[in-house]
Amino acid sequence: MQKIKVGVLGATGSVGQRFVQLLADHPWFELIALAASERSVGQPYQEVCNWFLSTDIPEKAAKMIVQSIEPNLDCQLVFSALPAELAGPVEEAFATAGYGVLTNARSHRYEEDVPLVTAEVNPEHLEIIRYQQANRGWSKGFIVANSNCSAMPLVMTLAPLHKTFKVKAVIVHTMQALSGAGYNGVPSLAALDNVIPFIKNEEEKMAGESKKMLGDFTDNKITPAEFALSAHCNRVTTLDGHLETVSVAFEDLSPRIEDILELWQTWQPLPQQLNLPSAPKPPLVIRSEPNRPQTRLDRDNGGGMAVTIGRLRPCEVLDFKYVHLSHNTIRGAAGASVLNAELMKAQGLLDHLA
Amino acid sequence: MQKIKVGVLGATGSVGQRFVQLLADHPWFELIALAASERSVGQPYQEVCNWFLSTDIPEKAAKMIVQSIEPNLDCQLVFSALPAELAGPVEEAFATAGYGVLTNARSHRYEEDVPLVTAEVNPEHLEIIRYQQANRGWSKGFIVANSNCSAMPLVMTLAPLHKTFKVKAVIVHTMQALSGAGYNGVPSLAALDNVIPFIKNEEEKMAGESKKMLGDFTDNKITPAEFALSAHCNRVTTLDGHLETVSVAFEDLSPRIEDILELWQTWQPLPQQLNLPSAPKPPLVIRSEPNRPQTRLDRDNGGGMAVTIGRLRPCEVLDFKYVHLSHNTIRGAAGASVLNAELMKAQGLLDHLA
Amino acid sequence: MQKIKVGVLGATGSVGQRFVQLLADHPWFELIALAASERSVGQPYQEVCNWFLSTDIPEKAAKMIVQSIEPNLDCQLVFSALPAELAGPVEEAFATAGYGVLTNARSHRYEEDVPLVTAEVNPEHLEIIRYQQANRGWSKGFIVANSNCSAMPLVMTLAPLHKTFKVKAVIVHTMQALSGAGYNGVPSLAALDNVIPFIKNEEEKMAGESKKMLGDFTDNKITPAEFALSAHCNRVTTLDGHLETVSVAFEDLSPRIEDILELWQTWQPLPQQLNLPSAPKPPLVIRSEPNRPQTRLDRDNGGGMAVTIGRLRPCEVLDFKYVHLSHNTIRGAAGASVLNAELMKAQGLLDHLA
Amino acid sequence: MQKIKVGVLGATGSVGQRFVQLLADHPWFELIALAASERSVGQPYQEVCNWFLSTDIPEKAAKMIVQSIEPNLDCQLVFSALPAELAGPVEEAFATAGYGVLTNARSHRYEEDVPLVTAEVNPEHLEIIRYQQANRGWSKGFIVANSNCSAMPLVMTLAPLHKTFKVKAVIVHTMQALSGAGYNGVPSLAALDNVIPFIKNEEEKMAGESKKMLGDFTDNKITPAEFALSAHCNRVTTLDGHLETVSVAFEDLSPRIEDILELWQTWQPLPQQLNLPSAPKPPLVIRSEPNRPQTRLDRDNGGGMAVTIGRLRPCEVLDFKYVHLSHNTIRGAAGASVLNAELMKAQGLLDHLA
Repeated sequence: MQKIKVGVLGATGSVGQRFVQLLADHPWFELIALAASERSVGQPYQEVCNWFLSTDIPEKAAKMIVQSIEPNLDCQLVFSALPAELAGPVEEAFATAGYGVLTNARSHRYEEDVPLVTAEVNPEHLEIIRYQQANRGWSKGFIVANSNCSAMPLVMTLAPLHKTFKVKAVIVHTMQALSGAGYNGVPSLAALDNVIPFIKNEEEKMAGESKKMLGDFTDNKITPAEFALSAHCNRVTTLDGHLETVSVAFEDLSPRIEDILELWQTWQPLPQQLNLPSAPKPPLVIRSEPNRPQTRLDRDNGGGMAVTIGRLRPCEVLDFKYVHLSHNTIRGAAGASVLNAELMKAQGLLDHLA
Repeated sequence: MQKIKVGVLGATGSVGQRFVQLLADHPWFELIALAASERSVGQPYQEVCNWFLSTDIPEKAAKMIVQSIEPNLDCQLVFSALPAELAGPVEEAFATAGYGVLTNARSHRYEEDVPLVTAEVNPEHLEIIRYQQANRGWSKGFIVANSNCSAMPLVMTLAPLHKTFKVKAVIVHTMQALSGAGYNGVPSLAALDNVIPFIKNEEEKMAGESKKMLGDFTDNKITPAEFALSAHCNRVTTLDGHLETVSVAFEDLSPRIEDILELWQTWQPLPQQLNLPSAPKPPLVIRSEPNRPQTRLDRDNGGGMAVTIGRLRPCEVLDFKYVHLSHNTIRGAAGASVLNAELMKAQGLLDHLA
Repeated sequence: MQKIKVGVLGATGSVGQRFVQLLADHPWFELIALAASERSVGQPYQEVCNWFLSTDIPEKAAKMIVQSIEPNLDCQLVFSALPAELAGPVEEAFATAGYGVLTNARSHRYEEDVPLVTAEVNPEHLEIIRYQQANRGWSKGFIVANSNCSAMPLVMTLAPLHKTFKVKAVIVHTMQALSGAGYNGVPSLAALDNVIPFIKNEEEKMAGESKKMLGDFTDNKITPAEFALSAHCNRVTTLDGHLETVSVAFEDLSPRIEDILELWQTWQPLPQQLNLPSAPKPPLVIRSEPNRPQTRLDRDNGGGMAVTIGRLRPCEVLDFKYVHLSHNTIRGAAGASVLNAELMKAQGLLDHLA
Repeated sequence: MQKIKVGVLGATGSVGQRFVQLLADHPWFELIALAASERSVGQPYQEVCNWFLSTDIPEKAAKMIVQSIEPNLDCQLVFSALPAELAGPVEEAFATAGYGVLTNARSHRYEEDVPLVTAEVNPEHLEIIRYQQANRGWSKGFIVANSNCSAMPLVMTLAPLHKTFKVKAVIVHTMQALSGAGYNGVPSLAALDNVIPFIKNEEEKMAGESKKMLGDFTDNKITPAEFALSAHCNRVTTLDGHLETVSVAFEDLSPRIEDILELWQTWQPLPQQLNLPSAPKPPLVIRSEPNRPQTRLDRDNGGGMAVTIGRLRPCEVLDFKYVHLSHNTIRGAAGASVLNAELMKAQGLLDHLA
């Protein structure tokens, strides 16, 4: 199989580094372009990138010369880790120029013809790109978004239940890792021995994005799911891994604890059926100990792509409550984009780029 | 005024140290006895106590000789920081011997004739001690409990609202400090770069104790309040200060944001009216910034005795949501006991000990 | 006594906040001006300052309108917490305009006619300001610097020994707090679960400044002390407090452990003799436990102005080794400047400003 | 090749878990026995072990039934992670019974006929076991120790220099990770926002063990190297990885920076020559950035078996100074024992056990 040539936009930041890490040895994609801001252009990646992952910088990427973020990269697909304030017009320019764009930025997430996809949850939404291309006059290019890092694991745990019992209301509380704010996002003096009970726009994103991803795709448009969602978002002193506690009520009153556990344990969504390279098997890891998942111990499950669940029990106010955890820069960001690209490839949605 | 002579049971542990800190220079109480486990008995407090508060060990306490935890201390009142597995029978023995016992242990909290009191919330429950003394055949002694460190601030914020609008349902999520587990409670290897989404029995305590404290005292007994309470309890990497996020629904549907704020801001409960030495003024500190309260920045408000509230806003599932914070070993433990004792003194409930 | 009117330059940063905290209720100085960068000018201090100390922002300062950093402030003395890249010319402009300048910036520390003073160590160096004023044609203004936060405690512990035994060689290793880098200095992702064994220019500063402060002032100039000093500087995960381990050799071979301890314990330098308001008593706190000083437990000794010493023992390579600790933003920065100002006031060196 | 059957003594603790992790899929050794304290005996390993490494518990070990720590295990070789207070007699009993014992405990390190070996540094010391067996009347069994986790990396960096220039004096300062104290070693309340400048007996161990490992083996005995070594040992807030700063002087005055770098870079000791499975290649990783090695970023180099060095520069007091880092529970403990066993196997020193 001919590998698809890919590039990373915003390659030096925290999500950009994850893209580089995940793509450097990918079986289906060949990483051939790294683009970043002007002050890095023309220099080897390893010299301009403050690489802070604990695995070594991939040899292949280390010496690659950083390019401008302009649609003249020698590849067909780009993964965007651009900051939101840049991503909007830049990603459009790439799509207009014929590139497939898989983006982690929030800029296009709410646009009606942009699919916001978690590969296990709403793969069928990818079909919108046909309408997107028609709408926007793009012959080959497209934009596919993945969601916010805190909404991602929530929809992963709700999706198999929603199909059967229909979610009615959710109260979710997050304890999010520092890496979610980017490398310079939270000063150490703000982080140490502290909790910050606020992350700008995060609660709105969790509600809006979760409903869009769990929405129906019919008549060429997405109708968001209609349940109520209330989020409390907090920044805690962990490096990676968003831990969330959830209380949920269903329209259908019948589910029992064991029904829910079975739905989770037997969930085999499309990426797992297709055996995609980045699809975690299983997608949901259930821990039975009373004190799991824990952030540091469970965030790397499934190579950082699984969502780990624990403590399912009745809720005194809604119906059930539980805890879930996922790796915010892998499952919740770069890994989600890569998995989306793999899914598109497996479904032939990238064939036109070849 | 003659000071009342007091002692501390379990004086070397983390709550015990707070008692010593708060009582060493108290205007109404004279600290004259420190009792701890057998291996410390007979030695100066400073030599057996691994003092870890960042203020110096009080000079007065430093050289006090540690005594056995037996009811032959030369004082009238004892503050108990005993571990739950000891507290039950020991505190009873002290009360039987005529000592007033103010306890932070959970052992007697659920007994029908033991008042579980947060001084600002349910001071009227203190009257049960007359029935307690009658029931148990105690002429002078009594047991008064204060609540769990995570239930305490919750009832502080609910109390002024409950009176007016009647609480119907609460979902509370805690991010609790390491000191809540005691000095050796959480190994550093379990705490660092981690969140533990479980604290044994804590969720049950929050529900049971909150309802008892907000309950009615009529016909010589307490009828717990009847709302539903669901708690998600988590241990995070902070030294002191429990931060909690709350979603609440009321029976009365009329309250608006500004009504709630006004009730909080104008709340003047009995300890503040009586100007008790340890009563924080105001009891509730309202912060208007979107990102406050924060654990490290706000836990010491009101000398660690105030509860700080922020982020009041509508809840998409219940009615309102907000964040509160309090110092778990001061407001949530030793300070609460001391304030209870002050309240009893001000109301003449300690006169019989003199 | 008429208070001297003072201002703070760079009032919103981490050292600036400490100046505000220490000066708000000072018995000799009246804080009347807060100056900061242009984007803060014209607004109340509390609205532009991201106050992050755990004591409340002083009421008096909270509503003060921030002014430009220009020499038209209505005061006689300014305390400078300016960043080094600004401090040089700005402080000169202030001194030229007749202000006394007490600076924490490094810009002028190495100039021959600028005294670099730790009040307990080299108070006699303050006399250079007469030559400074003559040299520079300043009638009233002057610049007095205090040293780097890691050199400060080292010279405090060496000074009483140097006088008697003459220091010959020092190897010092620091474990410095995050606040030393300023509020935005170290991202949390760089700090957590990490040690950074490098602080730019810090090792050079420790050598150069220590020798200047321990130097002789004769014939109107300072001759730096001549010992060898080798520093290893490290950033560790603490909020405040620089812990340093020291190996030292003396020219005089006679000292014994008990001689050193006695010199430290009986040290009564000028600020303590004069009973200056900010002078810690004693200046050196000696702990005898094997595991003290510890950063969090001992940094606030003497209101953050004392240096705490422990573990004095023979060194297998040089003569002796020990550990010391001090609060880097109080003793090591703002507090040192304030103490210098108090010393100047007590010696009449500020009379000409009245 | 027939694998050698091995067991782990003290398998549930922090070093024990590392042994299990490193041995579960070892190409030369087959893990067939896990022994731990009585309360775990008879139960599956996964149920009694509080596994806290972030990789999953190896499947093979998970269901193994824990056995008593008695010399009736069905294997030839045991790796001991026993606490020092137990290790002495237990390890002797095993050796007496014919087991080869590779121990991480300190109990036998100083005995004259027990080799204390870092495989790259003093492989020739292994030959002592012939005398050990003769001395002690052991036909097959033996005891081989590896060193303390803070001495290990120091001798790794000194060894190639010592051979050429002869070390004269060393001042070493450690910043050691929490895992070095074992899972329950340091309470989180002692660790957070703190540095503890003391680790019991650690400074003595660093001196004694470094000199023994760098000593000469002639006439059937080890003569410790004769340089002076002064250690300052500190516990900092990191999970894994001991970072150490070193000042060193040589007998030979000629070395230049580039000579030292070359010795380090070209060092090819026996385990690397033999291509042993756990031998890191290269054994010493040299980083040229001014701010490396950093604990979190570099501790996993070479699978946690390499020592990373940085910041080599002249020392103002001794000759040179530098920084090194190593993983304390891999390189500094379990991994060192495993590498020693591999070296013995490759040299035929285990043949008699088959």
